Amino acid sequence: MHEGLLERRTRANDAAVAAMLNADPVIVDVAPALEVLPGMTPNTILTSGAPLAWPEYSGGQRRAILGAALYEDLATTPEEADDLLHRGEILVRPCHDHGCVGSVTGVTSASMPVWVVEDAATGNRGHCLLYEGSDRERLTYGVWNPRVRRQLVWLRDVLAPQLSAAVRAAGGFKVHPVIRRALGMGDDLHSRNTAATAVFFQQLAGAILDANGAGEDTRAVLDFCARNDLFFLHVAMATGKCVTEAAAGTAHSSIVTAMAVSEKEFSVRLAGTGDQWFRSAIPELRAKLFDGLTSDDIAYMGGESLITETVGLGGLAAAAAFALQDYSGGTPQGMVETTETMYRITHSEHPLWKIPYLGFRGVPFGIDAALVSSTGITPRIHMGAARREGGHAGAGLLTAPVEPFIEAVNALQETLPIYTAPLPAHTGDE
Amino acid sequence: MHEGLLERRTRANDAAVAAMLNADPVIVDVAPALEVLPGMTPNTILTSGAPLAWPEYSGGQRRAILGAALYEDLATTPEEADDLLHRGEILVRPCHDHGCVGSVTGVTSASMPVWVVEDAATGNRGHCLLYEGSDRERLTYGVWNPRVRRQLVWLRDVLAPQLSAAVRAAGGFKVHPVIRRALGMGDDLHSRNTAATAVFFQQLAGAILDANGAGEDTRAVLDFCARNDLFFLHVAMATGKCVTEAAAGTAHSSIVTAMAVSEKEFSVRLAGTGDQWFRSAIPELRAKLFDGLTSDDIAYMGGESLITETVGLGGLAAAAAFALQDYSGGTPQGMVETTETMYRITHSEHPLWKIPYLGFRGVPFGIDAALVSSTGITPRIHMGAARREGGHAGAGLLTAPVEPFIEAVNALQETLPIYTAPLPAHTGDE
Repeated sequence: MHEGLLERRTRANDAAVAAMLNADPVIVDVAPALEVLPGMTPNTILTSGAPLAWPEYSGGQRRAILGAALYEDLATTPEEADDLLHRGEILVRPCHDHGCVGSVTGVTSASMPVWVVEDAATGNRGHCLLYEGSDRERLTYGVWNPRVRRQLVWLRDVLAPQLSAAVRAAGGFKVHPVIRRALGMGDDLHSRNTAATAVFFQQLAGAILDANGAGEDTRAVLDFCARNDLFFLHVAMATGKCVTEAAAGTAHSSIVTAMAVSEKEFSVRLAGTGDQWFRSAIPELRAKLFDGLTSDDIAYMGGESLITETVGLGGLAAAAAFALQDYSGGTPQGMVETTETMYRITHSEHPLWKIPYLGFRGVPFGIDAALVSSTGITPRIHMGAARREGGHAGAGLLTAPVEPFIEAVNALQETLPIYTAPLPAHTGDE
Repeated sequence: MHEGLLERRTRANDAAVAAMLNADPVIVDVAPALEVLPGMTPNTILTSGAPLAWPEYSGGQRRAILGAALYEDLATTPEEADDLLHRGEILVRPCHDHGCVGSVTGVTSASMPVWVVEDAATGNRGHCLLYEGSDRERLTYGVWNPRVRRQLVWLRDVLAPQLSAAVRAAGGFKVHPVIRRALGMGDDLHSRNTAATAVFFQQLAGAILDANGAGEDTRAVLDFCARNDLFFLHVAMATGKCVTEAAAGTAHSSIVTAMAVSEKEFSVRLAGTGDQWFRSAIPELRAKLFDGLTSDDIAYMGGESLITETVGLGGLAAAAAFALQDYSGGTPQGMVETTETMYRITHSEHPLWKIPYLGFRGVPFGIDAALVSSTGITPRIHMGAARREGGHAGAGLLTAPVEPFIEAVNALQETLPIYTAPLPAHTGDE
C-alpha cells in the first residue's frame, strides 16, 4: 500500500471515529415515517439490507413487503401489490438510504411510526420503527395477517401519539445515560435490552402520564413499554444510525458505517465509500432456538439491528451481557474472548459505554475494515433468528464474512473519492 | 464432636435450608409498624443489632433513637427522651425480635410504615422500613433535623398509603422473579439494587396508577419509586427476614438465621439457638467513600441489611455484581473469588437465584456456622458506610469476624435445646 494512502486513511479514521464519539444522541420524537424520513414517499416501502430487484425477494422479506403494501392501501390483494412492485409503482428501497434502520425484514412504510433520534452536536438524525410487540408473529418476522394488522394499527393510532407527546413533554431523552447504565446491567443493547428498557421506563412512565393523563390507553401504553424487554432495541438502533451518520462520507476512511443483511446477502458500507454496498453470502447463524425448532426451521429475512455492533454494542459488547451466554457461544469466558478479540479490529474504545467485567473498559468502538481485512477477524454479531414460514424463532451468534470488508477496502483505495460521486437511484434494481 | 450430634446437625441443617428454599416471598402490604409488627407498642423503638443497654448507645445510633422518640411525640426534647429511655418508659428493642430488620441505625418506631413480605408457603412474615430517600442526611444514617422529619412525614402520609393501595390492587407482588431477574442484571441485592428497583417499578407503576389515580401525589410517588436505585433494598431485606423465619427454631441446626451489627458489635443467630445473639467487636470496613471523606470520618451505627447475605445475596453474590467492583475488593476477578469462597461455608445453592458469570450457578445459600468455624472462612459482606456525625458516606466490604460463629456452634452443642427456653425480655438492659 502506498505510504501516503495509509497516512491519509489513518487521519480519516481518526476523524470518523472522533465524530461518532462526539455524537450526543437524544430521542426527540416519534413520528410517521412519511413525515420525518428523508426522501420518503407514500408509495415507498423500505426494507433491510442492500437492495435487491423486486423479483429476487422471496420468503419472509417478500411477505412483509407485500403486507406493508396492503397495510398502506396501496393495493387490495397481494397479487395487485406484486404487480405494482414489478412495475415500480410501489418502490422498494433500503432503509439505510432514508436515514433509517430496520429490524429483521425492516419493512417500514409511510404511515408507520418511527423513533427520531437526533445528535445534539450535529443535528444528524437516525430513525427506526417502534418495537412491534412480543407476539412471535409480526411483520418484523415476515408475517402478515389480520392480527398483525391490528397490532400495527394500535402502534400507529395509540402508542405512537402517546410516545410522541411524552417525548416532547419531557423535552427529549438523552440516550447515552441509558446505554451506559444498561451496559452495567447486563445488556448488550442488541439481543438483550432488558435493562435499557427498564431504565428508560423509569424516565418514560412519568412523562407518558404527564402528557396523556391516566385513561385506558395510557394504561395500555405503560404496559407495552414496561413489559416488552426489547422495547428499547429500536431506540438503540435509531441511535446507531444517528451516530454513524457523523462518520458517513469521511473521505478515505475505512471505518464501517453500516452492516446489514437482506434475506440473501450480508453487506457493509464504509465511511469513505459513500452509499456503496459491498456484498457477500450470509454465513450460518449459530442460534439457540425456541423449543421444538431446528436449524431447518429458520431462514434469513433481513436485518439491520447490526447497526448496534457497528457502534460497539451487541456482539462486540458480549462481555457485558453474560445472561446471553446460551445465545452467544455458550460460556461467559467465550464472551469475554469475543469482546477481547473485537478490540483487534476496532479503532477505539467508547469513553462512556463501559463493560464492568473488563474493569470498566470502554466497548470496542469503530470497526476498521482495514483491520478486518489484514487480520481476517470479522465482527461477531448477536442476531435474532426467524422462522422460515414467519415468526420469531430464537437468537444466536453470527460471524461476519470477511469478503465484503476486503472488497470495500480495495474499493476505497481504487476509487477515491467515490463518496462524492452521484448517489445511485436505488430503485430496487441495483 | 460426638457422632450422633453431627448426624443430627446434618439432618437439622438439611431441614432448615430446605425450609428457606421452600419459601415463596410475596409483598402483601405496606403498613405502620404498630399495626403489623408482632409485639410492637407505641413507646417501643426498634434498632439494629443485638441489644445494648440504653446508656451504651452513642453516636449515630443514639441520635436516631432520640430522633424517633421526638418524631413519635413521646418526648418534646432530646433531654426528656433520654430520661424516658433511661427509665424504660421508652423501650429500645432489637428489630429482629419483632419480625423486622433495619437499615444502618435501623430505627423503626410505631407510626413508621414497613414493607410486609409474606411467605405464601408458610405465612411467615418479614418487615422492613421503606427506603428513606437518597438524601445523605437521613434517620437511617443517624441524622435528625426538620428536613429529616419532613421526609419521614411524607413517607408516612403520602408514599406509604399509595404503596399500600397499589400492592393490594395488584394482589401482591412475588419477590422471587424480581430477585432472579436482578441477579441477571448486575445486582447483589445489598449494595446494588439498581436493576431490582427498575424491574419492580415496571410492575409497580401501573398498580400505583390503578390504585391512586393520576394526581400530584401519584406523580411524586412514581418519581420516588423510579429514581432511588436502592428503593428495592428494603424489600430485599424484608424478604431475607421472611425467608430466614422458615429456618428459625430448627433444633440442632447450625445454619445462620441472622447477622447484624449495632454501633459496637457484630452478632449472629443460628437456627438452632433461638433468639440468642453471639457477639464480638466489628472488624474494620474496607470502604470506598464519597469524595473528600477518609476512614476517620466514618463510624458504625448499626445495620441489619446483612440479612441479604444471610440468604445468599450481597457479598455472597459478589460475582453477580461486577459494577460494584470499586466497593468490593477492587476487581471483578476478586469478586468471582469471593463468591467461590462462599460456597465453602454454605449448605446449598439457590435454585432460582442465579449468577450469569458462573454459568447460572445458584448463589451460595445457607451459611453454616459449623463450616465457618471449621474453615475459618467468614461471610463477606457488602455494607454501606456512615459518617461519624451522621449521613451516608459510601460503601465497602466487611469480612465477618469468626468468633461469634465459633461461640454459636459451641453453644449449639452445649445447651440444646436452647430454642425452647423462655425468651429474654429484651428491655434494652441485656
